[in-house]
Amino acid sequence: MNSVIETILNHRSQRSFLPRPLSNEQIKMIVESAQAASTSSFIQAYSIIGITNPDKKRALAELAGSQTYVEENGHLMIFCADLYRHTMVGEIESRNLKESLESTEKFMVASIDAALAAQNAAIAAESMGLGICYIGGIRNNLPEVCKILKTPERVIPLFGMVFGYPDQVNDKKPRLPIEHVYMEEEYEQDKEVYTEQLESYNRTISEYYKERTGGKRADTWTSQMADMLSAGRRMYMKAFIEEKGLNRK
Amino acid sequence: MNSVIETILNHRSQRSFLPRPLSNEQIKMIVESAQAASTSSFIQAYSIIGITNPDKKRALAELAGSQTYVEENGHLMIFCADLYRHTMVGEIESRNLKESLESTEKFMVASIDAALAAQNAAIAAESMGLGICYIGGIRNNLPEVCKILKTPERVIPLFGMVFGYPDQVNDKKPRLPIEHVYMEEEYEQDKEVYTEQLESYNRTISEYYKERTGGKRADTWTSQMADMLSAGRRMYMKAFIEEKGLNRK
Repeated sequence: MNSVIETILNHRSQRSFLPRPLSNEQIKMIVESAQAASTSSFIQAYSIIGITNPDKKRALAELAGSQTYVEENGHLMIFCADLYRHTMVGEIESRNLKESLESTEKFMVASIDAALAAQNAAIAAESMGLGICYIGGIRNNLPEVCKILKTPERVIPLFGMVFGYPDQVNDKKPRLPIEHVYMEEEYEQDKEVYTEQLESYNRTISEYYKERTGGKRADTWTSQMADMLSAGRRMYMKAFIEEKGLNRK
Repeated sequence: MNSVIETILNHRSQRSFLPRPLSNEQIKMIVESAQAASTSSFIQAYSIIGITNPDKKRALAELAGSQTYVEENGHLMIFCADLYRHTMVGEIESRNLKESLESTEKFMVASIDAALAAQNAAIAAESMGLGICYIGGIRNNLPEVCKILKTPERVIPLFGMVFGYPDQVNDKKPRLPIEHVYMEEEYEQDKEVYTEQLESYNRTISEYYKERTGGKRADTWTSQMADMLSAGRRMYMKAFIEEKGLNRK
């Protein structure tokens, strides 16, 4: 195993940091790494906004569900799907790009572009000994987040990422069985096999919690997921994104 | 600069491979790396389908726009946003998860999850000396791709990735200026600054093409993008994804 794969496999979300900011050189290296990711037909449909202002960080942390680590970290970046840039391209080139920019296809392209860049940022940061955590919580209230970041039309903040010097090492939760996530030639057709894989994973997760809590907790993955998914969350999203000029047609 | 960042910055899309398949060990390491990526609230809403059958590869290559490298490579994987798994969770746990699973929010979560996993796969493969290329072309015709892969409801193949031993080294195209992609505290408010950044990038890209083609080609980035975006592409996407039970509400 080489050191790159070692870094990748060693990932865990870091939610507690020493009070030490990233240097400008570190931030630059992280952003350059993000930019080196593949981008669909060279479209580069994302932007990253770095936040250091403490008031802004506090406001974003509150919106994200009062997670202290959104405020207390070495740096915070917000990754945005960005087709405002291409709206400007239309202006610069005097071309009507509306049909394309409003499509679900292009919203997917921009979201995927942003995610590929973000994962490069994550790996780059971890290779420098930093810890990271994705902050999906900013999607609790995107209208407010957009106000804070002053984003124009066709820019959707997808998630944040906090960076910093870890002050403790977390456990790694076991992932789904590899044969469940990676299928050969076609999607698993046998519902029994599929279900048994999930049940086997339930046993793994249950054991994991039991061990960590001295038997106090033993929930399964499917029960966790069912709880999480039993009520619609962030149901404003569809209308909000359409209002911003994306995912419309 | 450490070897991880070196690998990341050294990325270029690889479209021509030696006729040598990946080993099972390589594939396993790539998938394990993919699985190590962050996943929103542990939802793990993606699947990867590995294709080795030559007829299937040929069919997928044709659908993706007759790109030979989709057929001729060391391995092909298809990355899918997958909420069928969570549809099964609803069945297993006897819970109604429909509202949540049909939301735009969860479609975003699944797409981002898949993209984070894919970028880990890309970096892992490149760290082993392999080349990769993302294949967005499979979205030309997702109904046919879904038939070939026999995917159930709530599974959307987002893109493919080809892997293999590179038989030539490509150039790296210069990315947008870092200060254009990475903003501080808020989105760039000055339209003139924004436009000048794009125009400066146009000069960079134009120079890049001139140098590579001995002056024959000198297009700018904004003109390329305007051409690409001037007609809607894959406009079936919105209806197709809704029909599959995602991005509905």
